[in-house]
Amino acid sequence: MKRFGRKEVVFLAGDRADTLYRLQTGLVRIVELLPDGRTLTLRHVLPGDYFGEEALEGRRYRYAAEAMTEVVVEGLDPRTMSHEALHQVARNLARQMRRVQAYEAHLQTGELRARIARYLLFLADTPASHRDERGLYVTASHEEIADATASTRESVSKILSDLRREGLIDTAYRKVYLLDLKALEQEAEGFLEAA
Amino acid sequence: MKRFGRKEVVFLAGDRADTLYRLQTGLVRIVELLPDGRTLTLRHVLPGDYFGEEALEGRRYRYAAEAMTEVVVEGLDPRTMSHEALHQVARNLARQMRRVQAYEAHLQTGELRARIARYLLFLADTPASHRDERGLYVTASHEEIADATASTRESVSKILSDLRREGLIDTAYRKVYLLDLKALEQEAEGFLEAA
Repeated sequence: MKRFGRKEVVFLAGDRADTLYRLQTGLVRIVELLPDGRTLTLRHVLPGDYFGEEALEGRRYRYAAEAMTEVVVEGLDPRTMSHEALHQVARNLARQMRRVQAYEAHLQTGELRARIARYLLFLADTPASHRDERGLYVTASHEEIADATASTRESVSKILSDLRREGLIDTAYRKVYLLDLKALEQEAEGFLEAA
Repeated sequence: MKRFGRKEVVFLAGDRADTLYRLQTGLVRIVELLPDGRTLTLRHVLPGDYFGEEALEGRRYRYAAEAMTEVVVEGLDPRTMSHEALHQVARNLARQMRRVQAYEAHLQTGELRARIARYLLFLADTPASHRDERGLYVTASHEEIADATASTRESVSKILSDLRREGLIDTAYRKVYLLDLKALEQEAEGFLEAA
């Protein structure tokens, strides 16, 4: 078992893929760092999900894994896993394949405003969701929202200001409060599966 | 073993997921049909790949599978598969996860002209690739190219005309001849993994 803080990487693209990981708690994203400096979030890893599955192919990791919250991960050696455990991995990869395909459709449907609302509601169903005296909020930077909505930080900031002015959300440092879930669901035009 | 012709569906979204499929020959795409009539290609299934992996979860198929060429598929019952076979499924899903993530990055990088060049070169590495007296060609409609480049048929047709005028490709009914691979590789700004 290993712990990582928010923004820490579990592995980088190019690292030797010796270990298959299972996420115990928290939220991890698989990312591609583009030559132009942009980051793309390719997939979200939820508690119970396996990642670093390149280890099953015996290759190097192709993409980096970054903690979006505090996380606890379990490292496994794919060469010594039981058949039962591998069966579980296959089932889980099937589930993640479904989710990643839903995420692809998310990236390609609706205006940016819809995609942002949809992504905030998705995060509200993950360990990036919390609650304090002001209500329900998700922890994500504008940059991270951009990386998962096929957008840029500037455009995300503009739309978050609009949504704040309209009373759907409120924002604080790396926090977005979801004040009006019903209105956000209407904006989202469909939802992004978190299970 | 079952055969399907080009454009035939192996299963539809919502069908009961009793069968896990393995593609023997040909090319299959996993698609989402959007309410607005658009089709999104979410993933390409290559020979040796498993698909319909929703059967491992015991659910309904979430997305449809459509043949892009003549295909031969093998149907498997996930409840009676050997451990060795399930191990193979896990390894293959890991490989497909890597490829689907590369495809996500493809959809989000470069101008449409680059994405089209990249996708044509990808198809040239799949069973959608053929050769006749005029040279190397891939079988794909403008619509199918649009579904896999985050675009529309109209925009794809326009760029294919440009590329034809410039001598990089030639087109015929559902065929795109790749006349100048070097120039296309330069246009593509990176490549999309087909293995």
